[in-house]
Amino acid sequence: MLMMRHFRMRAIKCPRTALPLLYPSSQNANRKKWHHIHSSAVTSYPRCELTSVRYNVDRGKFSQVCQEDIDFFINLLDRHRVVLEESDLEGHNTDWLGMVRGASSVLLKPRNTEEVSAVMNYCNQRTLAVCPQGGNTGLVGGSVPVFDEIIISTSLMNEVENVDKLSGVVTCQSGCVLETLDQHVAEYGLMIPLDLGAKGSCHIGGNVSTNAGGLRVVRYGGLHGSVLGVEAVLASGEVINCMSAMKKDNTGYDLKHLFIGSEGTLGIVTKVAISCPPRPKAVNLAFLGLQTFEDVLHTFREAKAKLGEILSSCEFIDRSSMECVELNLKLRAPIDPHPFYMLIETSGSNSDHDEEKLNMFLEESLGSGQVSDGTVATEPSRMLYIWSIRERIAEALIHEGYTYKYDISLPHKDFYRIVENMKDRLGDSVIRCCGYGHIGDGNLHLNIVSKEFQRDIVNLIEPTVFEWTAEVSGSISAEHGLGFKKRNYMHFSKSSNAIKLMKQMKMLMDPKGILNPYKVLPEM
Amino acid sequence: MLMMRHFRMRAIKCPRTALPLLYPSSQNANRKKWHHIHSSAVTSYPRCELTSVRYNVDRGKFSQVCQEDIDFFINLLDRHRVVLEESDLEGHNTDWLGMVRGASSVLLKPRNTEEVSAVMNYCNQRTLAVCPQGGNTGLVGGSVPVFDEIIISTSLMNEVENVDKLSGVVTCQSGCVLETLDQHVAEYGLMIPLDLGAKGSCHIGGNVSTNAGGLRVVRYGGLHGSVLGVEAVLASGEVINCMSAMKKDNTGYDLKHLFIGSEGTLGIVTKVAISCPPRPKAVNLAFLGLQTFEDVLHTFREAKAKLGEILSSCEFIDRSSMECVELNLKLRAPIDPHPFYMLIETSGSNSDHDEEKLNMFLEESLGSGQVSDGTVATEPSRMLYIWSIRERIAEALIHEGYTYKYDISLPHKDFYRIVENMKDRLGDSVIRCCGYGHIGDGNLHLNIVSKEFQRDIVNLIEPTVFEWTAEVSGSISAEHGLGFKKRNYMHFSKSSNAIKLMKQMKMLMDPKGILNPYKVLPEM
Repeated sequence: MLMMRHFRMRAIKCPRTALPLLYPSSQNANRKKWHHIHSSAVTSYPRCELTSVRYNVDRGKFSQVCQEDIDFFINLLDRHRVVLEESDLEGHNTDWLGMVRGASSVLLKPRNTEEVSAVMNYCNQRTLAVCPQGGNTGLVGGSVPVFDEIIISTSLMNEVENVDKLSGVVTCQSGCVLETLDQHVAEYGLMIPLDLGAKGSCHIGGNVSTNAGGLRVVRYGGLHGSVLGVEAVLASGEVINCMSAMKKDNTGYDLKHLFIGSEGTLGIVTKVAISCPPRPKAVNLAFLGLQTFEDVLHTFREAKAKLGEILSSCEFIDRSSMECVELNLKLRAPIDPHPFYMLIETSGSNSDHDEEKLNMFLEESLGSGQVSDGTVATEPSRMLYIWSIRERIAEALIHEGYTYKYDISLPHKDFYRIVENMKDRLGDSVIRCCGYGHIGDGNLHLNIVSKEFQRDIVNLIEPTVFEWTAEVSGSISAEHGLGFKKRNYMHFSKSSNAIKLMKQMKMLMDPKGILNPYKVLPEM
Repeated sequence: MLMMRHFRMRAIKCPRTALPLLYPSSQNANRKKWHHIHSSAVTSYPRCELTSVRYNVDRGKFSQVCQEDIDFFINLLDRHRVVLEESDLEGHNTDWLGMVRGASSVLLKPRNTEEVSAVMNYCNQRTLAVCPQGGNTGLVGGSVPVFDEIIISTSLMNEVENVDKLSGVVTCQSGCVLETLDQHVAEYGLMIPLDLGAKGSCHIGGNVSTNAGGLRVVRYGGLHGSVLGVEAVLASGEVINCMSAMKKDNTGYDLKHLFIGSEGTLGIVTKVAISCPPRPKAVNLAFLGLQTFEDVLHTFREAKAKLGEILSSCEFIDRSSMECVELNLKLRAPIDPHPFYMLIETSGSNSDHDEEKLNMFLEESLGSGQVSDGTVATEPSRMLYIWSIRERIAEALIHEGYTYKYDISLPHKDFYRIVENMKDRLGDSVIRCCGYGHIGDGNLHLNIVSKEFQRDIVNLIEPTVFEWTAEVSGSISAEHGLGFKKRNYMHFSKSSNAIKLMKQMKMLMDPKGILNPYKVLPEM
């Protein structure tokens, strides 16, 4: 019954943002309220083709789950934490974009590290493949099974163990939802140094496992910097406890980094310790309109120079992305149409100082003509509204059909050229080709939409987009990871020696290859 | 001849700070000038007992260097880059503290990655052990050989390849001296997000290999966060190129982290890419006197809250450390004697704003009595003078005899108790027992001095200090690493499963164990 309710809730909301898929238009809606709106228009999961069929994958030499296995799991976890019903499994077998679909018949919900360890020990002995799953908000098919892998969900592992107010370190289980965790540490005057559109659903363990980036990397850096401790369970069931809550710990190889960004293929993250900065006392958000991409780059440069230590986000949206949000989500840009838009956020400890810095920056940017129009929000509901425009582009795109998603790092000078080139290349064969993302980090989200998945469109995009990226020494996956969908393109960003070493490490740590198979490492 | 000159320069200066060991007292001395002072009082390297004898180490089953090997190296690198003379090798066989001494008879000076690769390929085939060496400023005996390991110096690999002003990323070879590199990026309005007392000598590759911490971690985080790319040569000679200059790159396992902090035991770092923040336009430094350690903690808490994003350093010095500096280096504290001192630095983009924040913080701290006395420096020479007090404590200590150095992370509530307990335990058996360090990071430098090395004093300190640290879940090496001296204490901070995995990784990546043997991993 619990499962049913859980699934129904997911079904009516966008599983990534936890917002209703058909979002009621309101400029002053409060995000907390949004999370509790139950739309009457129930949108079910898109039931796409099986991944194994669409991508012609061969099943690995793993055992198949039998009744004896089920009995073992029920005995270990109790019946209600062993999910077997197909309808309850549907949302866990499919990603929220409807791009990939597996056929698992078992989902397990351990509550603690010991249970994860016992499950893995058993699965390793039986050569049963597993797929670790957090909030299932990934974008590269990393968090759903490809065949019948047992899904190990962290959804019941959501305890916050400790918050140290002075050092700013929070330690918690991996199943804590990012937004809930952030609200928890807010009570101590702290913030989680990670924010992304999926915050209402994604689990912190999934964030760590995928090295999630998001909206504030420009200020707080990535998770390799802010995660101080990780506890993970290896394929064998052995627990690797690197749960230091110390800011500095140079005692041997820093194993936690193995689990950050390896997408559950080297271990299942069960606990994390994160260094949290003080929660800012003042936040301002500017929404700007610009005529050319050159102006965008110039404005970013000026923002870095003039806003310095208070710059906490620097985002970019092109006209086509904005149109998509306006059309499908009925959100309205707060300024007139422009070819390009930027969101520039400041966060600091003194509102007078921050406003003075921001005003000086804006006056000069508007005065020089680099920025054509803009508005500044300081009240929370207004800022949330503006942020929702940026955060919900991915959601808006799926209203138009199948989204081909590319998440690439590029040198700034090449940043937008790839969108223009792709537009030229695809012409009228697609509904939309647009770009947005984290200009502050050199991270572009290139998105292309067609009515439904078409192999010939994929062939027009890939590997060209990866070749272009490699030519300018970019990264073919900036923050989404490789998962299932990008794994065979790793060589565009990594050398053969590096790939060989990765495979050796996988063989060392998971010799039977049961941890999240068909993901990250290339087939050949 | 080049080597002779090189060695002579090292001999008259403190090799860690590159400052004369007998420093002329001058409040207005400029640091750049200091580096060029050639003191007439030549202080030679302390010639301590051989490490292998003092610590009763068994030599590994490595080949011994023969004439054929020398011929190969000379053929590869030319004669002048193969150092064979005992007098030239002395400074490379010994650490600057005079704690450890090896007996290498060959030092190689490759100029590029290809040469390092060729050397390693040869050494691996011949089973010749090597010791990678940067500026040899380490504090745990990690950068000098234990027996006759071939020293591979990065001193000629000091080319800066590129600085991208907009993204702030610098790419360079690993032998760049930290301070020189920082001066180079300063021309682009950037700074290296790492600063430490040894900046004038240490190499960036050594910093990366040891995951050096230093004075500004509280603001800029550690190197796992700011290093974007690493190129390293494996024991086999294979080159692992992870030299991304992108801020975000989630394409597979992030191998660069294997080389950050593994102290040259998994590979030799040949190039790095570092994300540099904008160089601050305004810097202020407050030097404070406090009566109790409780006041220190309270002041740190207030500094975090009130200075927020501009707090760039928060250091702590106890009375005994200050006495040592005053006595041996003739530096004078800028305020009257206090039981405790703090250095609080702000860096920001607007001097008026920063000064206002700092003044508000200081007024409240002085008003509440938490801080008894203080002075603020804004002019560079004055700030350098105050910083030199903090940075040269390690150097001052060696004037008094042999220093037993401990570098531990502790929860703030336990931070200073360990110094007091150790003072009680050691009583009159030692000359000095003092504590200083990075209070902002929870990182204490506990230092004990006796006239010369005494085994019975070591036995009074160890393993007690590690046991105390482990009891409060601290780290027995916060930033110095394990090197040779701390390797057998790893179990106080790492679980047996974690140590087992580290050993497996070492076996995978360096099956013959030729890379910096006797370091990092425990013997048993």
